[in-house]
Amino acid sequence: MQLASDNSGPALPAVMQAMSEANAGHMPSYGDEALMSRVRDRLRALFEAPQASVYLVATGTAANALALATLSQPWQTVFCTPLAHVHTDECNAPEFFTGGAKLSLVGEADKMTPDELQTAISAWPAGDVHNPQHGPLALTQATERGRIYSCAEITALAQVARDHGLPCYLDGARFANAVAALGCSPAEMTWQAGIDAVSMGGTKNGCLGVEAVIFFNAENAWEFELRRKRSAHLFSKHRYLSAQMLGYLADDLWLTTAQMANAQAAKLVQGLRGLPQVEITFEPQVNMIFARLPRATHQRLKAAGASYALYEGPLDQGPAEEPLLARFVCDWSITDAEIARFLDVARG
Amino acid sequence: MQLASDNSGPALPAVMQAMSEANAGHMPSYGDEALMSRVRDRLRALFEAPQASVYLVATGTAANALALATLSQPWQTVFCTPLAHVHTDECNAPEFFTGGAKLSLVGEADKMTPDELQTAISAWPAGDVHNPQHGPLALTQATERGRIYSCAEITALAQVARDHGLPCYLDGARFANAVAALGCSPAEMTWQAGIDAVSMGGTKNGCLGVEAVIFFNAENAWEFELRRKRSAHLFSKHRYLSAQMLGYLADDLWLTTAQMANAQAAKLVQGLRGLPQVEITFEPQVNMIFARLPRATHQRLKAAGASYALYEGPLDQGPAEEPLLARFVCDWSITDAEIARFLDVARG
Amino acid sequence: MQLASDNSGPALPAVMQAMSEANAGHMPSYGDEALMSRVRDRLRALFEAPQASVYLVATGTAANALALATLSQPWQTVFCTPLAHVHTDECNAPEFFTGGAKLSLVGEADKMTPDELQTAISAWPAGDVHNPQHGPLALTQATERGRIYSCAEITALAQVARDHGLPCYLDGARFANAVAALGCSPAEMTWQAGIDAVSMGGTKNGCLGVEAVIFFNAENAWEFELRRKRSAHLFSKHRYLSAQMLGYLADDLWLTTAQMANAQAAKLVQGLRGLPQVEITFEPQVNMIFARLPRATHQRLKAAGASYALYEGPLDQGPAEEPLLARFVCDWSITDAEIARFLDVARG
Amino acid sequence: MQLASDNSGPALPAVMQAMSEANAGHMPSYGDEALMSRVRDRLRALFEAPQASVYLVATGTAANALALATLSQPWQTVFCTPLAHVHTDECNAPEFFTGGAKLSLVGEADKMTPDELQTAISAWPAGDVHNPQHGPLALTQATERGRIYSCAEITALAQVARDHGLPCYLDGARFANAVAALGCSPAEMTWQAGIDAVSMGGTKNGCLGVEAVIFFNAENAWEFELRRKRSAHLFSKHRYLSAQMLGYLADDLWLTTAQMANAQAAKLVQGLRGLPQVEITFEPQVNMIFARLPRATHQRLKAAGASYALYEGPLDQGPAEEPLLARFVCDWSITDAEIARFLDVARG
Repeated sequence: MQLASDNSGPALPAVMQAMSEANAGHMPSYGDEALMSRVRDRLRALFEAPQASVYLVATGTAANALALATLSQPWQTVFCTPLAHVHTDECNAPEFFTGGAKLSLVGEADKMTPDELQTAISAWPAGDVHNPQHGPLALTQATERGRIYSCAEITALAQVARDHGLPCYLDGARFANAVAALGCSPAEMTWQAGIDAVSMGGTKNGCLGVEAVIFFNAENAWEFELRRKRSAHLFSKHRYLSAQMLGYLADDLWLTTAQMANAQAAKLVQGLRGLPQVEITFEPQVNMIFARLPRATHQRLKAAGASYALYEGPLDQGPAEEPLLARFVCDWSITDAEIARFLDVARG
Repeated sequence: MQLASDNSGPALPAVMQAMSEANAGHMPSYGDEALMSRVRDRLRALFEAPQASVYLVATGTAANALALATLSQPWQTVFCTPLAHVHTDECNAPEFFTGGAKLSLVGEADKMTPDELQTAISAWPAGDVHNPQHGPLALTQATERGRIYSCAEITALAQVARDHGLPCYLDGARFANAVAALGCSPAEMTWQAGIDAVSMGGTKNGCLGVEAVIFFNAENAWEFELRRKRSAHLFSKHRYLSAQMLGYLADDLWLTTAQMANAQAAKLVQGLRGLPQVEITFEPQVNMIFARLPRATHQRLKAAGASYALYEGPLDQGPAEEPLLARFVCDWSITDAEIARFLDVARG
Repeated sequence: MQLASDNSGPALPAVMQAMSEANAGHMPSYGDEALMSRVRDRLRALFEAPQASVYLVATGTAANALALATLSQPWQTVFCTPLAHVHTDECNAPEFFTGGAKLSLVGEADKMTPDELQTAISAWPAGDVHNPQHGPLALTQATERGRIYSCAEITALAQVARDHGLPCYLDGARFANAVAALGCSPAEMTWQAGIDAVSMGGTKNGCLGVEAVIFFNAENAWEFELRRKRSAHLFSKHRYLSAQMLGYLADDLWLTTAQMANAQAAKLVQGLRGLPQVEITFEPQVNMIFARLPRATHQRLKAAGASYALYEGPLDQGPAEEPLLARFVCDWSITDAEIARFLDVARG
Repeated sequence: MQLASDNSGPALPAVMQAMSEANAGHMPSYGDEALMSRVRDRLRALFEAPQASVYLVATGTAANALALATLSQPWQTVFCTPLAHVHTDECNAPEFFTGGAKLSLVGEADKMTPDELQTAISAWPAGDVHNPQHGPLALTQATERGRIYSCAEITALAQVARDHGLPCYLDGARFANAVAALGCSPAEMTWQAGIDAVSMGGTKNGCLGVEAVIFFNAENAWEFELRRKRSAHLFSKHRYLSAQMLGYLADDLWLTTAQMANAQAAKLVQGLRGLPQVEITFEPQVNMIFARLPRATHQRLKAAGASYALYEGPLDQGPAEEPLLARFVCDWSITDAEIARFLDVARG
């Protein structure tokens, strides 16, 4: 009943195996090893982007902050939703890496609409030295609430940005879950929809700690490399990042793992819907569920050892039937048995 | 004959084994896992510092830049040698992490003397708003030229810093090699000598990518945590950093591995001394050797597949007997057979 | 009919005179001149704060950005309204000077309420390394919409901040206009209400370019001086800043000038109320008026040479009676005749 | 006998007069006033550079730090001498404004040679992600020791920079003194010699506080404007900067004032040479003199009220004949009588 986060589970056996295989003999450092060439080739093929610049870093925040810094200037403002990870969960990493850019919040939810984006951009007059200047659009796919943008939605948002000459970044910490849910290709969800740079997360989907950052426009490449080094995110024994990513990409493991996680979440949602007094607050589309359950249900679950984020409280005091918001995340390793047991306990 | 760097070799089997063992089931993220508590306990015991704050990051540059930023202010200057890694090899990471502090260069070599430090500090008047303000002392142990400070030398340098109220940081990317060479305790080489914070490198000595940062003064703890998060160096699946460090610390592996690397380098030096026309430019004390060999010798070695850094050239043109500077580094995995073969080829 | 801004008018004769008088012979530089001692004494007396640290800078943005940087850390978030000058009109200066702090927006108007502030603070959990940390409260007095907080309102807001351990900064670019409107003392509006640092603007109220920054807590003094120097805002011929401020403070000129500007604005408002189809959007309390006038009225005014900011448009197309938002600012030099003429033209 | 600095003297009457004349009525703010158009035209004409971008700021450090930031990237290193103002006297302003660039020191004196520059550039391998990247050359003219580069010397240095693709900045805090000494045109000393951007100081040469920054390549213009605003150096009542500069430029006042200051310094040097036991340490070329005088001479001068910087000491203790280094600066207002009296006292 470990539903706290998709970063609390173990790594995939195939990824661990790739790490072991990479641990043989001497290799060049800092990404010059042959393994990284193979990573580059595979990701270019997967994204149908033979000219793309491909890099690896070890954390999602590094991927986001480095990509946004490469696409922006310190006097600009990034456009993102108020729930975006880059705004709420990175302790000002984007502000740090960009040298002091601002984040302007678009809309009020985890997904933005083209109209909301247009409104947010227009709120800052173009070409006026006094206010923050327009900078990149940052979308999150899947969102922090477990929802996804369709490729058409991404295209429409990117078009608004492009109309203002702004680059588009896609935070793909849960990239694989989104592709699995949409059934589209990586290319369709990114550069074909107008995305300039994307992170493709491995950490939350069965790796130890690796994220690919891909620029479809090669002019950003050298600056990104300098920013990565300057921020201490260039690994000397880079082979272990490469190996993780190779293991993750082999045999479509990245996709089948995400499909599995999404499927388990779907089972959990289905079960939750069968319970009384449960409110699903966002229609789950990937491996994350936001739902309100009665306090008494939470008490039973927590007492039985279930692990998940409870956003409202207190757990111990108040009416038994009062609904309290919680988040349940299925990582790849969640079993049918765990879900069944969770639902059993929830049923009471 | 892989002598390019101690970051080009593989990880220790025991470290890989610890990674595998840590890859079981769900765990709290971000350093809240039980493994990190054990790391903390072991490092506090090893350093005889029960109150020390202990953190893990994945790269040596992160350790250095985060520690220096925590100990300094943007309007200050760090004091280090002109050969210090923080000055020459981090693409301005210290300047970035500190928010724009300056590095003032002390002396002209890889080791500084107390007089040179005193001169460098005095070059900036204290309390004058116009010039950079005095900031932390940064020593490297072992140095970038393979030499070490004795504990007495560290004590004398730290005393100069303390006389000016300045904190002392020790870049211990090759901490274990230095302890192995000195035969002292970690405490003697650090807080007992006046060091306020130290990094203890694992990456170059048989880990995949992990460095401990230890503050002997607890008041820096929370700021360091915020800086680590803000710079994207807090790992979600932190367990794999903890596991590496636990494997590295078990059974004194960190020390015996360094002793082994130092011993292999000593064998190599001994062999090099037996060759004609070889000049050892710095008396090697750990696992790094700087030496000048005739061009013809380099040509034979490179042709035979030896890998190492050649600082002077060109390799292909010029007198056969002209001496050219090179660096040879022994990592833990270098065998007697490799050294013998290297010397055979060098002998011609 | 020059109502564009209180920074488009000339300087007060007495201020110009003080500049001329200061232009005699040699003096120490960088604020060490005797004139600055007199400034310090006068401002300490005016604020009834004998221990206050007092500094001069030349622009309001410098005052704001330096004060906020001194009161915050890069991983924190400042709390201000969405209309605050520091958010909308400084091209990310606060983010630059703080080293990348975030601005969290409180409420939706130019004034915030204690409840809104409490909500904004609580939106970021305390002590969680992942999100921005709580930083200073930044209030603007008078606001960007020409309104003022009462001393009781400031006290209530500062109390919310203090309950969370947060310092309070007051952007007083129009400090004098606010004091004039409230009829309170500078002390009542600042430290007695819980304010830790304040800027007292001279530029908009008859000086050439000078703002005082006052810290009621002396511990911030040296850091502010270093930040001022490092940001190139320490003037070598500082005497001309001191002289302006001395001229401005003499004979309560700062206050009588603001009273005059406020009074002229009151006359203008009274006149505007007498016109048909005029909507005063914010109840003006100082020297700024936000009002909607019919397009035809704007057309007449602009044609007659009136200068002011028109926020809606277009001027040339659309129904004659359509109301369009504009801002009218009275600086000290606006005469009764100008106001009368403006109203005449507006009347048609 | 006020020889402390050329920033301790008063402003020129013509400059004060221009300020008074500019203090009439309302004007657009932020550099949009007609006065600034005239400044732009005059400086373009003076520099024979019709396309140049021209800006005004109020301090020399702002000019330097903003120009260098515009010409560099945070991962680069600026090349300057160890005596450069940007290195020694700006409390890390260049590091702050550039976002953390490094300053690499060239040579060991106040002037650098092309060979020294070449050596300093070559010390950082090009295209290596690990070390700081090559950034702009920063020259100071006149230097901090009162010496000047000939136009040929500037050309030779700029050529070295250009060979590496690096832009060249000239810190002209004492620009006028240098032009006066060389007898060349502003164009010859700048863009014709390979300079990309230059500051032309007014503050030290009879203004209150104004420096022009001129880019000969228009592509830097908008970025400079954004950086100036973001660093709080864009003045709302910009007219007073424009007026100073106009007064300064009228009737070649900038040049004749510098000629006067240089001439007074020459008289002082001539007088000093006539004294026993005086050593002129740098051959003075502008309005600054570095000389060693016996302690007893200093004691007499200081007792008589002379004001200047004494770098060695103590004044009160030690052999009467011991030579102590001092700096004497003649600003425009130093009279023949003052110099005569100084020499009288010095003679004893």
